[in-house]
Amino acid sequence: MKVGFIGLGAMGSAMASNLLAAGHGVTVWNRSEAATEPLASLGAKVARTADRAVLGDAVCSMLANDQAVRAVFLDSGLLDAMDPGTVHVNHATISVALARELAEAHAARGLEYVAAPVFGRPDAAAAARLNIVAAGKAAAIDKVRPLLDAMGARVWPMGETPERANVVKIAGNFMLAAAIESMAEASALTRAHGVGAADFLEVMTSTLFASPAYQGYGKLIAEERYSPAGFAMPLGLKDVGLALSAGEATRVPMPFAGVLRDNFLDALAHGGEALDWSALALVAARRAGLDKREDV
Amino acid sequence: MKVGFIGLGAMGSAMASNLLAAGHGVTVWNRSEAATEPLASLGAKVARTADRAVLGDAVCSMLANDQAVRAVFLDSGLLDAMDPGTVHVNHATISVALARELAEAHAARGLEYVAAPVFGRPDAAAAARLNIVAAGKAAAIDKVRPLLDAMGARVWPMGETPERANVVKIAGNFMLAAAIESMAEASALTRAHGVGAADFLEVMTSTLFASPAYQGYGKLIAEERYSPAGFAMPLGLKDVGLALSAGEATRVPMPFAGVLRDNFLDALAHGGEALDWSALALVAARRAGLDKREDV
Amino acid sequence: MKVGFIGLGAMGSAMASNLLAAGHGVTVWNRSEAATEPLASLGAKVARTADRAVLGDAVCSMLANDQAVRAVFLDSGLLDAMDPGTVHVNHATISVALARELAEAHAARGLEYVAAPVFGRPDAAAAARLNIVAAGKAAAIDKVRPLLDAMGARVWPMGETPERANVVKIAGNFMLAAAIESMAEASALTRAHGVGAADFLEVMTSTLFASPAYQGYGKLIAEERYSPAGFAMPLGLKDVGLALSAGEATRVPMPFAGVLRDNFLDALAHGGEALDWSALALVAARRAGLDKREDV
Amino acid sequence: MKVGFIGLGAMGSAMASNLLAAGHGVTVWNRSEAATEPLASLGAKVARTADRAVLGDAVCSMLANDQAVRAVFLDSGLLDAMDPGTVHVNHATISVALARELAEAHAARGLEYVAAPVFGRPDAAAAARLNIVAAGKAAAIDKVRPLLDAMGARVWPMGETPERANVVKIAGNFMLAAAIESMAEASALTRAHGVGAADFLEVMTSTLFASPAYQGYGKLIAEERYSPAGFAMPLGLKDVGLALSAGEATRVPMPFAGVLRDNFLDALAHGGEALDWSALALVAARRAGLDKREDV
Repeated sequence: MKVGFIGLGAMGSAMASNLLAAGHGVTVWNRSEAATEPLASLGAKVARTADRAVLGDAVCSMLANDQAVRAVFLDSGLLDAMDPGTVHVNHATISVALARELAEAHAARGLEYVAAPVFGRPDAAAAARLNIVAAGKAAAIDKVRPLLDAMGARVWPMGETPERANVVKIAGNFMLAAAIESMAEASALTRAHGVGAADFLEVMTSTLFASPAYQGYGKLIAEERYSPAGFAMPLGLKDVGLALSAGEATRVPMPFAGVLRDNFLDALAHGGEALDWSALALVAARRAGLDKREDV
Repeated sequence: MKVGFIGLGAMGSAMASNLLAAGHGVTVWNRSEAATEPLASLGAKVARTADRAVLGDAVCSMLANDQAVRAVFLDSGLLDAMDPGTVHVNHATISVALARELAEAHAARGLEYVAAPVFGRPDAAAAARLNIVAAGKAAAIDKVRPLLDAMGARVWPMGETPERANVVKIAGNFMLAAAIESMAEASALTRAHGVGAADFLEVMTSTLFASPAYQGYGKLIAEERYSPAGFAMPLGLKDVGLALSAGEATRVPMPFAGVLRDNFLDALAHGGEALDWSALALVAARRAGLDKREDV
Repeated sequence: MKVGFIGLGAMGSAMASNLLAAGHGVTVWNRSEAATEPLASLGAKVARTADRAVLGDAVCSMLANDQAVRAVFLDSGLLDAMDPGTVHVNHATISVALARELAEAHAARGLEYVAAPVFGRPDAAAAARLNIVAAGKAAAIDKVRPLLDAMGARVWPMGETPERANVVKIAGNFMLAAAIESMAEASALTRAHGVGAADFLEVMTSTLFASPAYQGYGKLIAEERYSPAGFAMPLGLKDVGLALSAGEATRVPMPFAGVLRDNFLDALAHGGEALDWSALALVAARRAGLDKREDV
Repeated sequence: MKVGFIGLGAMGSAMASNLLAAGHGVTVWNRSEAATEPLASLGAKVARTADRAVLGDAVCSMLANDQAVRAVFLDSGLLDAMDPGTVHVNHATISVALARELAEAHAARGLEYVAAPVFGRPDAAAAARLNIVAAGKAAAIDKVRPLLDAMGARVWPMGETPERANVVKIAGNFMLAAAIESMAEASALTRAHGVGAADFLEVMTSTLFASPAYQGYGKLIAEERYSPAGFAMPLGLKDVGLALSAGEATRVPMPFAGVLRDNFLDALAHGGEALDWSALALVAARRAGLDKREDV
């Protein structure tokens, strides 16, 4: 299939590579051109301007946040450069509100729009092991199914309304942050009683919580290895903000999300800008004064 | 080994059965005698009074809470009926404060004390698949090791101070409650956006959260099957109370635990006494008015 | 002084009346023209379009929220219709972010900008008893001082940076919401123990909390008189949102604000749209099941 | 009237002095005898043992907490030393649970029991300006009315069930803590935006919050004068614990109380043991990193 790919960060680059590996004709565009080179060497065509990357049957995009998606697709007039019937597959983690606005903007131009946020880090993206949550018209999803299959381990269909995929992604990221905070508070408690985080978390993540999320973040907390960040604090704050906004729009109180928000801010107010979001454990430990107690 | 077993609820009965199956000589006692009958039929000796159940090399106990443990072991004078050197293996989920008091009371009488709380429900107990967290003097743990091995899949040693095992159990149960609340809030959010809890939780518990805790409770939430309770609301409140108390004693703020406390109270104030603690999902849904919205 | 007045809700109308009463020449404009009539009868000149209301020495505005201020002053080009040197006195409760944007937009056009949010309800506005928090260049504030004096009991200067006045207003409204929630939780507690809210709050608001805020809202809670709303729930949610946003921008955790947010949402999810924000007391009572207990 | 007075801390001493000043015959007892001397010099009779202080028509007590009350009145057998018909006026801030237990213990011995907790600090006690919340049988309250009038500015009757007075006191202290936290968060927010706590709180406590509680604590926060403590952090934690326990017993969620609990713990974990509870403002500022920002 002829497909454009817009947004070549760590995630996007890995995903585009897999499209190439699956034999698709891929035209890539990225705001800063340097990121296009590795893909060019794998056979991608490089577009000088974004509007040249949207001329195929489909265009995938993996941009950082609402602002980037808005700038590239809405404010720039890029949608007007796309032929009716083109399918835009948006992999970004964006707000429900923007998802809705995008769905309307595409529909108004006769474009197909599929929200397809992903669960998985860059290593999973490179291994084509992403879990892709997809929502949009069945025909549109069917059309881009070969692309999704080339990038992910599994596609989780969520119906025809694109924003449904986005809320699943947002709720899932909230669950990740809550899992981290849960380990942070629990291990602060055990540490204050003389049981190290590593000893405690080994029990939990080998038994009841033997899952990728807990094992991955549990290891970071046990080893206090928060840098380099796999997913940095400001992104955690941004994502819990998406959950809070989505909850506010639909009147869903989310007390855990409120706690998370405050703890991300606490982390950022204490120099945590570049730390992994699992450093919520540092916040819990600092509040308990564990960083200054000699015996823990 | 000659061993007494005190406390024959669903958990204790299953655990004592496994001791019998492993060939140990077991004398059982329970406050209400009816519970002793199935074990008698498996070969257990039934003690008419608790002091006759503590005459072997070791005595295991699985009582419901602080009050029961205090009543049976401290207030009754039972410890004075035990021979010096006897090992008491206490499987109950009790407070750190009581754990400390018990350790001292045993030491003062030349008795060995091993705290050995367990992770696992009655079905895991029956299958001898419990995870047993054990703390106490190494020699004492070694001595009762055959008993622990007969009841559990694995023993997690936590050092010589008994209360260390208790804080691990308390912190672990807090993590379970937090996992439930996390799913409760997240699925209230997705439901408010038209994505059912079952659809959402299937994605999460098949991928990032593919662990026993999330899969088990996720299923209950997805199916809204809160009755009969595997672990009832009042027990959830009790356990989060143990975490809050342990945190208070060591000055560890636990904001998630505070939220859980309030939500358990909310559940109990709305007729949730007999529901499984996963019915925290009902609280989240009710607060969001989902129980009265026609479209979710 | 020749002054324009834009935004004639209950507050703005009362404030503009006091400018007239003090002898100023007032030209009013309001989106829906009906609101201009009572002022016309008091001697105000009515502008057919907003740009005709900004031709005097100063223009005061009292609009509902960020959107309204943005629409009227930024998106419409209205600032370009003002003569350099004109002082715009903005009384609205707006976000810190918009306050900053407005300050820059005025400065870029050689216009003076004074942020002057007020504490007080329509009755205080009518009686010229408002407390006005004012920030902006000293010369600009001096120039409009006669206007402020005509509308308020006291002017509280907050320095030269306009947004400083806004953050004071935002923090103050947060304190009001917190005071309400505090009475809500406290009286739910006493009611559950058989002491009615009226009996309890009479003690508190006659003694330690003998202040206008507590007495006013305490009375509404004691009498369960939440309708008609003096300040409706959605405005409470909006204002706590302004505090949360201002905190987020400067990394200030605000756990009370998080609780308030959730409780406003809970109220809105239960039909509280038109209720006074003191109906947070209904949320506390409902969560405790007091609405269904016969004995309270 | 012949009256005993037990518990001569700063509050009790001042209250007993006022009984003497009003012409009552007062016999005092205190655990450490030194505190009795100033009262002896004012004409009090000093009892060597507590049972000699309970022989009059009434006995007032002002002890520190549940443990002290339990030790002096229940565990010691002191109630058995009192003649039937004697009225015990308990001024201490104690738990609802203990209040109930005391009421029963007195009734069982034919003693009258009046719960009469007070609002006011030692200076108010010295000036006989306390607000006394009183609950107990009408005849008993009438009998001790001259004593209450000698110690307080006003008596607030709360009916016949003693614990009702205690829950009012507990709920009132919760409101005080919430007022402090509200000022703490609000002034952290304004400080982060360049407006000092003193400037901000002057506005609030001169207007909407012009009440003793806000003005007193607002001044301490504005001046960062947390030492010597008027009411120390551990007492704040104890009192919010009383509210949480009372709420738990009656299933009343209290999210503000949960936040307060965590913040008191945070303060205590950071060396706040001897600080006034208004130093919750330090916790809010530290969490926001304000203690390390140069510009605030």
